[in-house]
Order: sequence, then structure tokens, then C-alpha cells
Amino acid sequence: MYTEIFNQFKKQLGQLDKWLSTATEYAKAKNFDPDVFATLRLAPDQLPLARQVQIACDTVKLAAGYLTGKPMPAQEDNEKTIAELQARVRSIITLLDGLTPKDFEGAGARVVSQPRWKGEWMTGADYFVEHAVPNFYFHLTTTYALLRHNGVNLGKRDYLGVQSKRPAAA
Amino acid sequence: MYTEIFNQFKKQLGQLDKWLSTATEYAKAKNFDPDVFATLRLAPDQLPLARQVQIACDTVKLAAGYLTGKPMPAQEDNEKTIAELQARVRSIITLLDGLTPKDFEGAGARVVSQPRWKGEWMTGADYFVEHAVPNFYFHLTTTYALLRHNGVNLGKRDYLGVQSKRPAAA
Repeated sequence: MYTEIFNQFKKQLGQLDKWLSTATEYAKAKNFDPDVFATLRLAPDQLPLARQVQIACDTVKLAAGYLTGKPMPAQEDNEKTIAELQARVRSIITLLDGLTPKDFEGAGARVVSQPRWKGEWMTGADYFVEHAVPNFYFHLTTTYALLRHNGVNLGKRDYLGVQSKRPAAA
Repeated sequence: MYTEIFNQFKKQLGQLDKWLSTATEYAKAKNFDPDVFATLRLAPDQLPLARQVQIACDTVKLAAGYLTGKPMPAQEDNEKTIAELQARVRSIITLLDGLTPKDFEGAGARVVSQPRWKGEWMTGADYFVEHAVPNFYFHLTTTYALLRHNGVNLGKRDYLGVQSKRPAAA
């Protein structure tokens, strides 16, 4: 299921790209600077929208690296504008486009660790289910919530995107 | 991976239960009615917290029913208080406790449909990846966002819960 869920991450990143376009159009229609959105927070001690987008992107990129063993490029988290954030989102979609189901073979049994874990580690399966999936959707939904809270016209269909429904029997 | 992700849903519902307790304590400390939280919205045209919790619960329950073929109890969505919402959350944890890995055998190949889909259907695998997972985390994170936005002291560890880290080699 790794391939299927990463494909879904890719689809959700495409939806996120569209929300940011919708936010930009809204700002233009209301005659304010769209990049103000990048600075907004839901609480003074919660990260602003730009960081929410960056962390959503990094969660997917880092998980793809851990679970495939492929090197992933470092990114600087220096985006300040909505257009730059959209470029960041698209860079992750491009990375995912370069992965195949074969790359995820054995993903669940991989050893995942980070320097700040001081030798502790997680299996790829645990890391994916307990960290990557909930963390990605956390930062994705927080971004959506920030836009909705600030007047951007989005709905659940914009969040989920098109579902793979199959036609009724004739 | 169905079993693992439903176990994670169960863990996340346990975290949600704790957030609601933290919100109740916060309201008591600030001397306001905790049940006000059930009515709060991030936008006037977004559903209030009570509905976010109910839909998070229903997303898990309905997906468990579709993917195992087991009947799931109807629930009335009549919760008005935080304590009632916590009972709803716990009812889903109890339902999940009654499922075994064997119940999810063949889940991905099941036919999922609803009356309002007028004969259209999704595979269990597509329904799970494209609807159940993103929709559950959407309503879970929106609930978290509502609480954070309104002053409840929660952080990312409260969202993710304890991760299954394994000890460093001696």
C-alpha cells in the first residue's frame, strides 16, 4: 500500500497547489497582497502557513527517502511567497513522479532513524503509519483550515479531489 | 496495512479523547462552559466542532464496516456536550477493539457503495486510500485546529501520541 498512499499524497499536494491558487485569486479580488497568507497563524504559538506547507512537503519527501533508500535533495525552507510555496509543492510532486512501485519494495522493514533520536529507530512500517501519514495530513489540513478561516472559498471536494468511482453496472 | 492503519486510527481517537479532556480543564480554569467548544467553527460556513468529531468517528466506523463486511451500529449524531462527544469517540475505539486482522482479509477488493452514489462504486482499496484516510485526518486535525485556535494548550506530541521507537543498540 506504500505506492498507493504516496500516489494519494501526490494527489493531495496537487489539491494544495490549487488551494494556493484560489487564495491568490481571492486576495487579488479583495485587493490585498496574497503573500500575507504565508504569514497567517491559527494561534500565536502555532507555525504560520508557509511553515505548514514546507513541513507537509518535507514529511512526504523525507518519508519517500526513508522508505525507498533513495537520496532526496535538501531544501532551504526559504519560501516567502505563495508562488514560491507552490513551486515547493510542485517540486515534491516531481520527486514522487520519479519513484516506482519497485522502489518501495521492502519499505516496511527498513530502519528509520534521525541524528536527534540518538540511536533509537523505527521500522519503516511504523514510521509510515505513526508519523508520515498523520503528520502529512496534519500540516495539509492545517493549511486548508488557515485558508478557510481567512475567507478563501474552499470545500471538502477541494480537499479530497476527484474520487475513483467506477460506473454503475448497465 | 489495513490493520495497522485502523490501529493508528484507534490511537488517534485516544489522543482526540485526551484533547477534549484538556479543553474541559481549560474551560474550567477560565470559568466558562466547556460545551461552548462543541459549537465553535473556524469559518461561519464550516461545520462546528461537534460535527467534526462525529464525522471523524463515522469515517472510521463506516470504513471499518465497508472493509470488513461487518455490520456497524447506527449512531444519531445527537451529542451536544464534550462529555457526550468523548463517549462517542470511545464507542468507536470499542468497535475497533472488536476487529481482528482476519476481518480485514480481502478488504482491498471489496465493493464499496452508498445509496446516493446511484450504483457507482469504489474498490475497498481506493475507498480507504482516497476517502477514509484523508477524511478521518481532515476532521481530526480540524478539531485540533479549533481547540488550538481557541486557546487550548496542545502541541504536536498531543496530536501524534507516543511513537514506536526502538532502543539504540547497546
